[in-house]
Amino acid sequence: MSLNTGKDKKRVVIVGAGFGGVKVAKLLDGPNLDVIIVDRNNFHLFQPLLYQLSTSEIDENEIAYPVRAFFRNSSNVNFLMATAEDVDKENKILKTSEGDVPFDYLVLAAGATTNFFGMKSIADNAFGMKTLQEAIKIRNHVLRMFEQASTCTDEAERRKMLTFVCVGGGPTGVEVAGALSELIYGVIKNEYHNLNVSEAKIVLVEAIDRLLSMMPPDLSEETARVLREKRNVDVRLNTACKDYDGEMLTFKEGEPLPTRTVIWSAGVKAVSLMTKLGVETDRSGRVKVNHSLQLEEYPEIFAIGDCACYIENEGERPLPTVAPVATQQAVVCADNIKRLASGSNVLTQFKYKDLGSMATICRGNAVASMGSMKMKGFFAWVAWMFVHLLRLEGGYTNITVLYKWFWNFLFGLRLGRVITDTKIAE
Amino acid sequence: MSLNTGKDKKRVVIVGAGFGGVKVAKLLDGPNLDVIIVDRNNFHLFQPLLYQLSTSEIDENEIAYPVRAFFRNSSNVNFLMATAEDVDKENKILKTSEGDVPFDYLVLAAGATTNFFGMKSIADNAFGMKTLQEAIKIRNHVLRMFEQASTCTDEAERRKMLTFVCVGGGPTGVEVAGALSELIYGVIKNEYHNLNVSEAKIVLVEAIDRLLSMMPPDLSEETARVLREKRNVDVRLNTACKDYDGEMLTFKEGEPLPTRTVIWSAGVKAVSLMTKLGVETDRSGRVKVNHSLQLEEYPEIFAIGDCACYIENEGERPLPTVAPVATQQAVVCADNIKRLASGSNVLTQFKYKDLGSMATICRGNAVASMGSMKMKGFFAWVAWMFVHLLRLEGGYTNITVLYKWFWNFLFGLRLGRVITDTKIAE
Repeated sequence: MSLNTGKDKKRVVIVGAGFGGVKVAKLLDGPNLDVIIVDRNNFHLFQPLLYQLSTSEIDENEIAYPVRAFFRNSSNVNFLMATAEDVDKENKILKTSEGDVPFDYLVLAAGATTNFFGMKSIADNAFGMKTLQEAIKIRNHVLRMFEQASTCTDEAERRKMLTFVCVGGGPTGVEVAGALSELIYGVIKNEYHNLNVSEAKIVLVEAIDRLLSMMPPDLSEETARVLREKRNVDVRLNTACKDYDGEMLTFKEGEPLPTRTVIWSAGVKAVSLMTKLGVETDRSGRVKVNHSLQLEEYPEIFAIGDCACYIENEGERPLPTVAPVATQQAVVCADNIKRLASGSNVLTQFKYKDLGSMATICRGNAVASMGSMKMKGFFAWVAWMFVHLLRLEGGYTNITVLYKWFWNFLFGLRLGRVITDTKIAE
Repeated sequence: MSLNTGKDKKRVVIVGAGFGGVKVAKLLDGPNLDVIIVDRNNFHLFQPLLYQLSTSEIDENEIAYPVRAFFRNSSNVNFLMATAEDVDKENKILKTSEGDVPFDYLVLAAGATTNFFGMKSIADNAFGMKTLQEAIKIRNHVLRMFEQASTCTDEAERRKMLTFVCVGGGPTGVEVAGALSELIYGVIKNEYHNLNVSEAKIVLVEAIDRLLSMMPPDLSEETARVLREKRNVDVRLNTACKDYDGEMLTFKEGEPLPTRTVIWSAGVKAVSLMTKLGVETDRSGRVKVNHSLQLEEYPEIFAIGDCACYIENEGERPLPTVAPVATQQAVVCADNIKRLASGSNVLTQFKYKDLGSMATICRGNAVASMGSMKMKGFFAWVAWMFVHLLRLEGGYTNITVLYKWFWNFLFGLRLGRVITDTKIAE
């Protein structure tokens, strides 16, 4: 490793360039600390819009921002493209695919990955949707299904190609189902002159009795109603998956469903690095942190965001795996590192401010709740749009995305329908 | 094949959705003919800007436009995503990877591929740049080279990673070399705080004695001068490559050059389908066509663009493989098919109108020539920009591209620097 930082400075190593990791690095920018962000990708990913990439609405560069571009003018912040593999807690060394990185302080902001709950056949054959690579894979696959269906003469095979199953009734599942519906009934229907779109089917499967369980029940009902009545989505509640071989999805109860596409967003767990740490984790693999966001036995190691289990008051559930938790924790984490580095032991305690939640159902329709305030329909969608546009990173991205949304809102063309993984022989 | 077209209509099958193929289909749009476009990709590619994708300036969706989107309102034009494999000329059947497609008229507009002139080691280890997939591969590779170099402690290895060789002094080679220079000295230099950019090297290799041989000699000289003096590109004329093993490029004469990146744009040849036809081809594998753009012995088969060899007057060289030839030929080809379909045997003769040529050297600098008119510098670049913007396909693409160019012109951030092919274990 030739990351030659000043020898007299304390070094902070941050694992993960997500919402939490990037924010910590930004806040630690300054002459007194050396900061290294480690990520296996060279970009920060705006995960909330990943579903729009997978359904051909926006481009990968609009939600993927080069990590180094954040720190162009911060000579004390460096980036290492590597996979974090283990932590030598005693000797304060992060082990990575590109070699050892010693640290004075370590921030684990490594995020979460898809949780298939041990169902191997589903893990092998369904699509996860947590990474850019996965979303591109889904886009290519979905578009290819339409191309294949358009020349397939066997009706059963064709229906299998045209059946798209989203598992998980959280925001991602709802958003993907709605976006697929727009794609099929707004675009595919008009452009595949030989395809009978009435053979297509979108199914949204949820194990419990309602969608968007973090929302008030009436918004959950509204969401299901809009998907069913306006977007032609077959919403199946109280339905748990069992197996999937790439052709047939089976459930704990009821008829199996022939489909070539299962998009799984039914659960997340912390990345596997967390369980390697040898400290206490919850059942989602998140490491427990104290109120200063440190591992209790290793106060120089912090964990924030989706990979941390933070329980505000004893007996309560841990905070959810959402971006605002990560960004709010990043502020306290950075502050506490500064305090420790300057010799202080009086650390800030984290206090979560719940900003509510929102989910878009389809073009022009969303639900949002914040405290006792509830919104639905067009105005919720406009609010959703602006919240997301404002949070997008990058000089011009919010303008190009806004422009595309506006264009799609008016004409619904979805010009991102490009299959990029075709093998070309010559 | 379930492309159920009307039985009483004549069917036109077009191989290739490039400039020529798409234009023919547009011109044949109407109730009297059934048209099927066959392409191995589901998109039309705007090849002139491929170099900007490979150097992280624009996104793939900006130069790749879904073929079906052109023919949304043309129910008589269908698309088949398939590789054209052979032509049964006697029975009028196009053989494809997805089955047989019978035709009344066939338009071969299949384009060209990289010509490595039989040098196998170079074909195996250098990058071609004719397809979207290849440009994405170059982008990912180039960005990865900087990441790897930033942690590499062996100077010789590091210099090998930071040496980028473009072979071929035509527009593509010039444009890639200029764009790489901007990337390295405008972006990488500022964002890789630990990388010594003076170790980087860009080499442009050309076998003959000047760049841009289709231009007047003084513009060739100007191009070489700008690249050398302003963009720090090592322009090597009269230099022919011999071998490349992925680490070391050797030449017919002179010192070998250690490099991990060779981008080959030194020649093109027609796609291999052309040589399978069993009719006369030139040494670039292009099929010879008569003045009505037909194969002499098979008047129902037309060939246009990069895969056709059209000689205007005996003894002259064939027309060059550039977009204006393809689009101009498309007009005559479509016209002649309409005439044949309506029973006429009086066909239009093709006459090429040379629109001149232009190449961009770097941001704010280009060369252009048209007849006796010559332009260079900033105004040539503005002209280049508008010609390309106007020719871009798609509802919003010219706006987003113009916006990005403007942004890049001012700040040179190149936010498309995203490595998308990282294998992610979990």
